[in-house]
Amino acid sequence: MRISDLARESGVAVATIKFYIREGLLPRGAPEGPTRALYGPEHLSRLRLIRALTEVGGLSLSTTMDILKASEDGVVEIHDIFGMAHRGLPSRSIQSQDSPSLDSATKEVDDYLRSRGWRVKPGAPARTDLGRALVALRGLGWDLGTEAFDVYAGAADEIAAWEISQLPLDAPLPRLIEAVVVGTVVFETVLTALRRLAEEHHSARRFRGNAPRN
Amino acid sequence: MRISDLARESGVAVATIKFYIREGLLPRGAPEGPTRALYGPEHLSRLRLIRALTEVGGLSLSTTMDILKASEDGVVEIHDIFGMAHRGLPSRSIQSQDSPSLDSATKEVDDYLRSRGWRVKPGAPARTDLGRALVALRGLGWDLGTEAFDVYAGAADEIAAWEISQLPLDAPLPRLIEAVVVGTVVFETVLTALRRLAEEHHSARRFRGNAPRN
Repeated sequence: MRISDLARESGVAVATIKFYIREGLLPRGAPEGPTRALYGPEHLSRLRLIRALTEVGGLSLSTTMDILKASEDGVVEIHDIFGMAHRGLPSRSIQSQDSPSLDSATKEVDDYLRSRGWRVKPGAPARTDLGRALVALRGLGWDLGTEAFDVYAGAADEIAAWEISQLPLDAPLPRLIEAVVVGTVVFETVLTALRRLAEEHHSARRFRGNAPRN
Repeated sequence: MRISDLARESGVAVATIKFYIREGLLPRGAPEGPTRALYGPEHLSRLRLIRALTEVGGLSLSTTMDILKASEDGVVEIHDIFGMAHRGLPSRSIQSQDSPSLDSATKEVDDYLRSRGWRVKPGAPARTDLGRALVALRGLGWDLGTEAFDVYAGAADEIAAWEISQLPLDAPLPRLIEAVVVGTVVFETVLTALRRLAEEHHSARRFRGNAPRN
């Protein structure tokens, strides 16, 4: 198909398609005459994956490029896609400055993860997010240790085991990459939304209609 | 104490304290002469709460003001603090435009919440977040219904029940408000960070060292 057909089929504007080709995210079409090129279903599925990673997944173009490159090299392990996606995702961290107390809190987090038997890379950004959470709580005078994570870690463990079991391992690699990245991002939103709703529900059950406090 | 002492004790700059007073977030001090005022421990604890809500909680000044006003009126219910905090928190929604498919997805979400027996206000923004997640997944051709939420909803239910049971109900109201808002925000980060780490762990267990896929 021509680039205009590709644009219509994919919902991606012609200018954006040309940009993706220049940046190396999308392969060139097969030349047809001096100014025209023909595109096939592989272009359509690649565009779909780029949109999934950037628009739904919120990944930057450069992280998207890394993931696409790795998948083309044919040596990608599914595990590495998780790593790339997690490093590329916007962190949802509490604000706190780097400080000795953050270093020591992050060490506590590492000890905690080890005590749970979790195999996690030393560079995983979520470790620091947990350290920042401890620092923020302590800055408010909440004297909390990593045991405050237990209920959340138990839930996260169950969720993640289930998620990994649900991956479409027989699907083509682009579809599997999409499932890893989109699943990570979209169901993070789902989980946080459901937690807020569950808080509202349990708070209604517990407090609704009680005498006002003063 | 003088305003300079209040600044030192609280870690909030004098100019910021004056701004909070002008905006009505902090009561004026007791006049001492024409240009001076004296501040007490109630100013210190109020400043601490403002910092907790805005810096750690990430609430806007206007939401913070609403919560402080409601707590002063003496008619606030704990349940309403959850509502105000949730409405004031930045939403972590997937991008998607308002559309008929979003309306219908949000209706599915409402049916789902009803089927779980959750008491949730019709205006809760997290409902729309869940609708957007469904729309985003379907836009990628994932044919998913609300049953895809089950594992997350089960985990959220357990977490929220536990959280409500942990609230310091005997604490003074400012401390309780702080616990609701800061707990909601900080442990949301904790939960999402732990889920990512658990995904990494379970993916390592399942895939690490497997033959590369192609």
